[in-house]
Amino acid sequence: MAEGILLILSGPSGVGKGTVCRYLLTIKEALKLSVSTTTRPPRTGEVEGKEYNFTTTSHFKDMIKQDSFLEWAIVHDYYYGTRREKVRELLLTGQDLILEIDVQGAKQIKEKVSDAVSIFLVPPSREILEQRIIGRGTEDSERIRQRLETARREMDAYYLYDYLVINDTVEAAAGLIGSIIDAEKSKVSRGVRPPGWGGEN
Amino acid sequence: MAEGILLILSGPSGVGKGTVCRYLLTIKEALKLSVSTTTRPPRTGEVEGKEYNFTTTSHFKDMIKQDSFLEWAIVHDYYYGTRREKVRELLLTGQDLILEIDVQGAKQIKEKVSDAVSIFLVPPSREILEQRIIGRGTEDSERIRQRLETARREMDAYYLYDYLVINDTVEAAAGLIGSIIDAEKSKVSRGVRPPGWGGEN
Repeated sequence: MAEGILLILSGPSGVGKGTVCRYLLTIKEALKLSVSTTTRPPRTGEVEGKEYNFTTTSHFKDMIKQDSFLEWAIVHDYYYGTRREKVRELLLTGQDLILEIDVQGAKQIKEKVSDAVSIFLVPPSREILEQRIIGRGTEDSERIRQRLETARREMDAYYLYDYLVINDTVEAAAGLIGSIIDAEKSKVSRGVRPPGWGGEN
Repeated sequence: MAEGILLILSGPSGVGKGTVCRYLLTIKEALKLSVSTTTRPPRTGEVEGKEYNFTTTSHFKDMIKQDSFLEWAIVHDYYYGTRREKVRELLLTGQDLILEIDVQGAKQIKEKVSDAVSIFLVPPSREILEQRIIGRGTEDSERIRQRLETARREMDAYYLYDYLVINDTVEAAAGLIGSIIDAEKSKVSRGVRPPGWGGEN
């Protein structure tokens, strides 16, 4: 059986990674979201093993020491990471996985999983991204200024990715990512063979 | 403007390249069939410049001497070839082109156009291909034997291609090729840039 594909979905802050990712999971039933491990306490309604694997800071630090993570990061004082063994086991069963992750994490993973497929989601324009960040209306102006600056800096990283997808509409962006998955799974370099032709079965 | 993509569609004799290619052209309007040059006389209904560019053997041989072809071959005593300049001009205007071509021609083109995307169409199984070749019922048994042997030999070349597509149904195969085109056109390595972000327009 062919190994699963590890898909990295990344993009600037505010571009709508989460929305596109959730929609993609509804149209690509064979795809599963890779569940991160975090030290952040569960929010209301979050279920262990679904949104995250929840753990303690000391256990997380132990796992860092044991090089258990494909990538990890500290965000707003909490640790988040992707466990290497969990990803490897799922890929070996043929499961395709998607990881929604920031630019730094994507870099770390690409170094460790050379055949991971990395996708950078971008807004239709700079103005639209800025409107999305400002328009949330839940943050003070200093926080908004920071988020705008982060987003602009993150945009500069697009050239590190394999594919660039424009988030014009959620449906179109998810559809294109679906096409990228189908195309990648047809690559001869991934070990695809003619069916029923002897040798492979 | 980004350059167009040169798509090579190949596969064993009898796999249904022509049918898939024609269907693909109806669902991908931006895609055009690359018109070959041939010394074969036009069949009834064939229009110069549509199915082929028709020419004389002596002119074809001149063009071979001038290295005018990306690939050329002799099939049933007639010359067939793909003119380099014509392909280059169309790609430069952003036009995506598809070339339906045999294994030998595909090899020649991959050597000359390194970013061409090559797709190998295969039958769902060996038996199905054999049935398709035998089932045409228009040829004597020696000719069928030859075609079966050619098809088996051509199948061995699949590993030279970028993508492998199973011709289970014409619609599914053409749909997957459409996805491969969309994916390829989103590759950062092909010069895709974030829109409206300064620099690219």
